[in-house]
Amino acid sequence: MKKEVLIYTVSDSIGETSQKLIAAVTAQYPDIVFHNNYRFPFVNHEEQLIEILRDAIKDKAIVVSTLVNAQLAMSARNFAEKTGLQYIDLMNPFFEILQSKTGTTPIQQPGIVHKLNADYFNRISAIEFAVKYDDGKDPHGFAEADVVLLGISRTSKTPLSMYLANKSVKTANLPLIPEVPIPEIIYQLPKEKMFGLICAPEALVKIRQNRLQALGLNQDSNYSDIHRIEKELAYANELFKKLEIPVIDVTEKSIEESAFVIQEHLKKQSN
Amino acid sequence: MKKEVLIYTVSDSIGETSQKLIAAVTAQYPDIVFHNNYRFPFVNHEEQLIEILRDAIKDKAIVVSTLVNAQLAMSARNFAEKTGLQYIDLMNPFFEILQSKTGTTPIQQPGIVHKLNADYFNRISAIEFAVKYDDGKDPHGFAEADVVLLGISRTSKTPLSMYLANKSVKTANLPLIPEVPIPEIIYQLPKEKMFGLICAPEALVKIRQNRLQALGLNQDSNYSDIHRIEKELAYANELFKKLEIPVIDVTEKSIEESAFVIQEHLKKQSN
Repeated sequence: MKKEVLIYTVSDSIGETSQKLIAAVTAQYPDIVFHNNYRFPFVNHEEQLIEILRDAIKDKAIVVSTLVNAQLAMSARNFAEKTGLQYIDLMNPFFEILQSKTGTTPIQQPGIVHKLNADYFNRISAIEFAVKYDDGKDPHGFAEADVVLLGISRTSKTPLSMYLANKSVKTANLPLIPEVPIPEIIYQLPKEKMFGLICAPEALVKIRQNRLQALGLNQDSNYSDIHRIEKELAYANELFKKLEIPVIDVTEKSIEESAFVIQEHLKKQSN
Repeated sequence: MKKEVLIYTVSDSIGETSQKLIAAVTAQYPDIVFHNNYRFPFVNHEEQLIEILRDAIKDKAIVVSTLVNAQLAMSARNFAEKTGLQYIDLMNPFFEILQSKTGTTPIQQPGIVHKLNADYFNRISAIEFAVKYDDGKDPHGFAEADVVLLGISRTSKTPLSMYLANKSVKTANLPLIPEVPIPEIIYQLPKEKMFGLICAPEALVKIRQNRLQALGLNQDSNYSDIHRIEKELAYANELFKKLEIPVIDVTEKSIEESAFVIQEHLKKQSN
């Protein structure tokens, strides 16, 4: 039987910050079943906090805190020391270092990371941009984009565009089909902002078969035929060479990893 | 003059995990200028690690680690203790608690949080779904969606759809325009999966004016006229009442906060 572990998250805002870290930690324990949907947002009163911590003890849960209110964070820490509650404070170790380094105290304003500032609106407009200019729908997007992704079907152009957009990178993409000429404007774009995507043909066969299945279509389609796919890839590679742009092999790469490669390229260029 | 703080991030994979936490911490110090683009990914050798840590001391930087390799993490901790380097390890406090609780050790596999498993592919297909069915482009999406967002122009339907999709929620949205009848299928959908979006009219005037400006269009348009907007909102509110669906006011809410409200509704329903 698999071991089970409960994780409580306590926050004075919506509690978004701890989720990514918990995902990274729990991924290191494939043999433990984690229950981490015990999410306690908007904890703003001491009584409310202590009640949650008491429940955590009963549930033998680990408590992860992103409380920014110093008073509440201290109460939780004291409670944990007295009771042996397993408690992790993600914010305060940082705050203490910053205090000793700069003498500055945090403003203790919950949820301020979601502030509607210029950065926020840039990110939102990058997301809207990526949706609007997905799939080469409108060639006007290519000139305005920060990044243009080119690739044959199922080389993860769309999710990669959305991921980059979420990092405020205005991303457009163009599907490559040997029979369809590419828009003239592509040849005039700065090559620094274009990236070619490829994938191993065997992997693409599987991915495309799954897609056909999901769409309820005949599996024997040309679309998932290895010879067809090899022809498409040869066409794409030739184009990438002509354009002199970097090529990213997305086989076995997650979106985060492919995006990382692109961001490193962009960083190098801006240096 | 503003104080400046350098943050180094050290990871044995791409170093994505620490970014969100650092954003949340630094948001609490509006008066400090943070330089946190010193990102050191794929740190897999002790010499490489120590060299980075030495540079951090020279730069008076804070080092944030998400190293999952126990040997490397211990070297970094020892180095920090000897030298007084300001060092925060985000993973190991968790690992220690899990070790004491379950006797299980982490598999120490860098980057495994980006594993291409079923969850990952669900998320990717939710993102593709949301792009495909954005803006009511294809009414087939409404039946298949987990969530359908309804709202007049500029109530953040698109970014909210993308955010939910990134949480693996298949989201479609329908723009509401008083002069355009809504698709018949909307009346047949389970009302539990529909959400109405509204926004204060004064805020919408500003947002729409900005949009017109961004598009290089005449600012005196009907589109940003307060009477027109009030009429659209009245129409939307009446429809939401008829459909008996929850209404979310997105004024002054970030996408994360609006999404949180929706996720809480979904959670309540599934209980």
